[in-house]
Amino acid sequence: MTALEKLIFRNQENKFICVGLDTDFKKLPQTVLKEINPVLEFNRRIIEATKNQAAAYKLNFAFYEADGLEGLKNLEKTLKFIPENILTIGDAKRGDIGNTSKMYATSVYDVFGFDAITLHPYMGFDSLSPFLEYEDKLNFILALTSNPGANDFEKLELKEGSFVYQKVIQSVKKWNNKNNCGIVFGATKVEELNDNMNLINDLPVLLPGVGAQGGKLEDVVEVFKNNKRKNYFVNVSRGIIYKDSSNDFDKSAYNEIYKLNLTVKNILS
Amino acid sequence: MTALEKLIFRNQENKFICVGLDTDFKKLPQTVLKEINPVLEFNRRIIEATKNQAAAYKLNFAFYEADGLEGLKNLEKTLKFIPENILTIGDAKRGDIGNTSKMYATSVYDVFGFDAITLHPYMGFDSLSPFLEYEDKLNFILALTSNPGANDFEKLELKEGSFVYQKVIQSVKKWNNKNNCGIVFGATKVEELNDNMNLINDLPVLLPGVGAQGGKLEDVVEVFKNNKRKNYFVNVSRGIIYKDSSNDFDKSAYNEIYKLNLTVKNILS
Repeated sequence: MTALEKLIFRNQENKFICVGLDTDFKKLPQTVLKEINPVLEFNRRIIEATKNQAAAYKLNFAFYEADGLEGLKNLEKTLKFIPENILTIGDAKRGDIGNTSKMYATSVYDVFGFDAITLHPYMGFDSLSPFLEYEDKLNFILALTSNPGANDFEKLELKEGSFVYQKVIQSVKKWNNKNNCGIVFGATKVEELNDNMNLINDLPVLLPGVGAQGGKLEDVVEVFKNNKRKNYFVNVSRGIIYKDSSNDFDKSAYNEIYKLNLTVKNILS
Repeated sequence: MTALEKLIFRNQENKFICVGLDTDFKKLPQTVLKEINPVLEFNRRIIEATKNQAAAYKLNFAFYEADGLEGLKNLEKTLKFIPENILTIGDAKRGDIGNTSKMYATSVYDVFGFDAITLHPYMGFDSLSPFLEYEDKLNFILALTSNPGANDFEKLELKEGSFVYQKVIQSVKKWNNKNNCGIVFGATKVEELNDNMNLINDLPVLLPGVGAQGGKLEDVVEVFKNNKRKNYFVNVSRGIIYKDSSNDFDKSAYNEIYKLNLTVKNILS
């Protein structure tokens, strides 16, 4: 299955929630601290509990790199717990000159084996093209992000009329010859999402920012419903994995994603 | 010594060349392939040969991540070969939402122990601020990069008149309260460098792109000389470390950086 097929498959089952495994040692429930490898055991239990409800899993490299080599070993091992038919997103936000981006693509796609990645557009086409060579993968390029800093550069107005992030979306569409590109659009920016649905057209969309960052799942789903389209993931990290700090953290994670899926189902039916 | 002090110290000695340790296993000289750890032995010999001439060392994470965990172990070990008083730049090009950038800062500054980092500005202030908290470090933010893709977004003209990359430079100056920011400016973009020296003012500048990418050392040094300022590094990677594929690769690397330093000295005197 290609990455796009995995996305479509889960979306057809009305599953749109991507579980963000932003696992921070300092936020782990007491109960896993007695394990030999608390982060890995935490991830294993979260995945085991949520895998029938999750549309995808997103692992942000930063949370693993912060623990150095041990952290990256955990990232590698965590991927093995995720069923083959569920999309895995390496939230790496990479981007460098061509020969260097090629090395990052090797790392995230060949060495770690992720199905998808997130990428910074700032350095332009040749910084993205080595990733775009991978036909079976999905490259989510940052367009309008969920954070306050999105106003600093992404939302600057260009002389030609559009905003910087809109120019990024236009360019991604132009570069999407292999049908393996998508964009990242903040779930906190629902008004802009709605206004740009024609521009985004059929590009897959990864939407972080629901929960701790203030985005509302219902609002995002309504926009896609009104535009009669699927091919998107709404990422929830802290809202699922840290829902409960008791020994039942995994059951609570399951209950939370079950509720989120039900919310989506109710809107769509 | 703070990162800025290390930069100033070397610049006062008229040393401006940063050695880019973009070590690619496939490009190693035959002679080191018989070693237990060829990449590490190659880096050790390059550093040993060039350390009296180098103004800084820049390690691009991509080249190490491409070898997975072993690669990152090599990155960690390579740093130990670099004398304490020479600036080390983690060319990581990171940038994410605030709580995530904090994790990247922990990784690059606390875990690996680099003196400086390169950062993507796209996501704005809160994606940079966790790095800017480190008073003794130097944060080089991408402004106008050396690659062809710099035209795609960095050089878009804004409605307010300037280009995107100029707005980035303006913002970095505004955010530089702790005097720990710099910018990345492509050595292939000498005309724009010259035109923007007033705007850049006294921000430290990291200039990649000399050699394989087509930038000329002489041109860059002339611009800084004409503007009576220092506080910059010109990075050379392939042109130094792969100058020679014989067993004398380290001597050739030394000869090359010696020549580059002499070129600079001749221009400045």
